[in-house]
Amino acid sequence: MELGNKERSLVSKVMDGLISGIVEERYGAILPPQDVLSKEFDVSRTVMREALSMLLARHMLDVRPKIGTRIRPMRDWRMIDEDVVSWRFRAKPDKNFLRDVIEFRALIEPAACALAAERASAADLAGIREAYEALRQTSPGEDGCEAADTLLHTRILAASGNQFYQQMAAIIRGALTLVSPILSRREDGWTNVVNAHGGVVDAIERRSPEDARAAAMAMIELTADELHRALAPEAVEPR
Amino acid sequence: MELGNKERSLVSKVMDGLISGIVEERYGAILPPQDVLSKEFDVSRTVMREALSMLLARHMLDVRPKIGTRIRPMRDWRMIDEDVVSWRFRAKPDKNFLRDVIEFRALIEPAACALAAERASAADLAGIREAYEALRQTSPGEDGCEAADTLLHTRILAASGNQFYQQMAAIIRGALTLVSPILSRREDGWTNVVNAHGGVVDAIERRSPEDARAAAMAMIELTADELHRALAPEAVEPR
Repeated sequence: MELGNKERSLVSKVMDGLISGIVEERYGAILPPQDVLSKEFDVSRTVMREALSMLLARHMLDVRPKIGTRIRPMRDWRMIDEDVVSWRFRAKPDKNFLRDVIEFRALIEPAACALAAERASAADLAGIREAYEALRQTSPGEDGCEAADTLLHTRILAASGNQFYQQMAAIIRGALTLVSPILSRREDGWTNVVNAHGGVVDAIERRSPEDARAAAMAMIELTADELHRALAPEAVEPR
Repeated sequence: MELGNKERSLVSKVMDGLISGIVEERYGAILPPQDVLSKEFDVSRTVMREALSMLLARHMLDVRPKIGTRIRPMRDWRMIDEDVVSWRFRAKPDKNFLRDVIEFRALIEPAACALAAERASAADLAGIREAYEALRQTSPGEDGCEAADTLLHTRILAASGNQFYQQMAAIIRGALTLVSPILSRREDGWTNVVNAHGGVVDAIERRSPEDARAAAMAMIELTADELHRALAPEAVEPR
């Protein structure tokens, strides 16, 4: 039942051909139907289906009932393997990993917040405010509190307008799954964290890139402090 | 010959189980042999092979003759889908894409150079110097000139010590494939670019994070200027 080596290399060849056609804009917005493509590439429908499913999984295509297989805008193509990110964040974090996560967040998020303050559309601003109000209304540990936090960070990255920053959202979400359960353990810690998010949202709404950058930095430092406290050696491995 | 839906979901389940075992450190450094794992998970060897090959492709495992299947350090796990990155950079760049690429490089590389100046080991420094000397000895457009450039940037990112920065090397390499053929078209432009790289290498060797950051920024601005000149609307679409 497995794809044999011959079929596998055929699938790769077909993928490559499809991608060439897409990047050279030979297909327009909608791919030809599967059986037309199978004939064009002279392969079985099984091989074509497999090649298309590889592109689908990478958010390069979209199946629309009655319309067909739409080619997604290139900025949506997933450069990040979200499975690997989530697996990586499932492991018990060691000291180096925590340092690297915080360093990476401190690189991406303040810069993204500054860009969002410059570029956010009215709809972006409304979405960011909405996500923040939802976060404010959850209590730590409650269902939906992580989801609200994640949504807020994702929307800010989206409002940066930069497609690479947007792709980094997957890693930031991974970092949040690591941090959230720890932050929401302490009631007062949580209030501080929510307020720190508020500072970011306010600065973006005021269209002040420098304030947004500083507020994001403060937010990350606050969560980094809480993390260090919670994951200090004696906390990680109680003796 | 295709994996059916049932097998496919079995493969996912087995992958998930393997990953749980790995992140919970149940296996040690070397995975049990395939037939042992097949029995443990009660699946066919075909399904197990497929699951292992998915992890192998993501640099989570390593097959070592006579030793077995080694679990790779988590920092090596590939969060970036390098295929998608290379496909994305194969498309004709539009104005927004160029802006985003330059913005992203200007975010990652100066920060990585600063960290490299702080953290590079003696071996890192030697590797960076070696790659730079190789770059200096190539002429624009010559075979090996792109490879030398790529190697230098990759080694600097590696020397940053941060595993997320290191993962971004795939995107930076994509950006370089876009830029290199353009830069190497003009003899004097190329000399300037090589010298700009020299400034970065010197600052890293002097262990000056601030100089390394500034030199990297200057290097990116130089290539951005050359790019803009080469890809100005009239250059991209001659009328």
